[in-house]
Amino acid sequence: MAEQRNNDELVLHLKDVHALEEQAIKTFERAVELTEDEQLCETYRQHLDQSHEHAELIAERIKAHEVKPSAVKDLTMRSGAIGLRQLAEIPPDTPVKLAMHLYSLEHLEIASYEFLARIARGAGDQETVEAAEQILEQEREAAEQVQSGFDRCVELLGEQAEKAEASKREEDEASKGKERSEQEEPSPA
Amino acid sequence: MAEQRNNDELVLHLKDVHALEEQAIKTFERAVELTEDEQLCETYRQHLDQSHEHAELIAERIKAHEVKPSAVKDLTMRSGAIGLRQLAEIPPDTPVKLAMHLYSLEHLEIASYEFLARIARGAGDQETVEAAEQILEQEREAAEQVQSGFDRCVELLGEQAEKAEASKREEDEASKGKERSEQEEPSPA
Repeated sequence: MAEQRNNDELVLHLKDVHALEEQAIKTFERAVELTEDEQLCETYRQHLDQSHEHAELIAERIKAHEVKPSAVKDLTMRSGAIGLRQLAEIPPDTPVKLAMHLYSLEHLEIASYEFLARIARGAGDQETVEAAEQILEQEREAAEQVQSGFDRCVELLGEQAEKAEASKREEDEASKGKERSEQEEPSPA
Repeated sequence: MAEQRNNDELVLHLKDVHALEEQAIKTFERAVELTEDEQLCETYRQHLDQSHEHAELIAERIKAHEVKPSAVKDLTMRSGAIGLRQLAEIPPDTPVKLAMHLYSLEHLEIASYEFLARIARGAGDQETVEAAEQILEQEREAAEQVQSGFDRCVELLGEQAEKAEASKREEDEASKGKERSEQEEPSPA
């Protein structure tokens, strides 16, 4: 009875973790698109690749428990159910907010693997425990890498504001120039 | 020019941090309501109290930069804009998912204060730097406390499933009993 229960809990949690990895894939894809800075972009791209590997690894663990393919197919439906908004819903308007979002998402994943290791241990599924611990380490590294980009994000915030000011100045100059030339050459009436 | 720009960035980020604290207050209020386990509830309640203090501290720093009260009043409108869904939107159906959500929220806050310290330093606002560093330490402790409840959350998951099974068994027994008594005493037809 307890064994079946532990197994059911494990499969449910594996499905949540898989849904979360699919959400992470979409989020990091969007982050790569949004990020102009090369170094930050590379950090985000690396974690995008890793997320694909993690999703596959978790899908394999689900298959090891359930042979019905429908169970795996249904997984995509669970995406977004756990907590973070999709980036599509809230386009982060600055590199700072994007990094905050990614850092938070990384920690949602860290928590999900902390739980996966515990639940799999309770269900006696050593292979899943090992997969969870291996991925956990990579998620922790990814969180650190996102954090190591924080200084660069603040620099970019300044650079963006500077560019916006410069283009505002150019516009103002252009419109003043236009006014002057209109005053010098009155339009034929 | 650069000074004004740094100041504008700081005020904008302070508003985001304030909105995030307001979201944290709502989220931890809901977490306290949802949590039956005394020890977990106490952890969440402590951070609820702290979040009120943090929101006040940040509101003071905003007032130090902007005297117009409308700027502070508008803050509530920004709630929920940064990334995490409100708990009201996604009622976490287990203590495990609730803890995952809170852990992620804590790290969204940690990132927001990491950035606040950096942006305030760039704007030469030492008081805000100190406030950010002080709160940052408390947010890190809160995240650790949420994490230290993970084992208990897994236990609760098992207890909940056990209760659900027991009440299912009782129902089954009751309906079998009813069937038997109906067979023994046929209804008057």
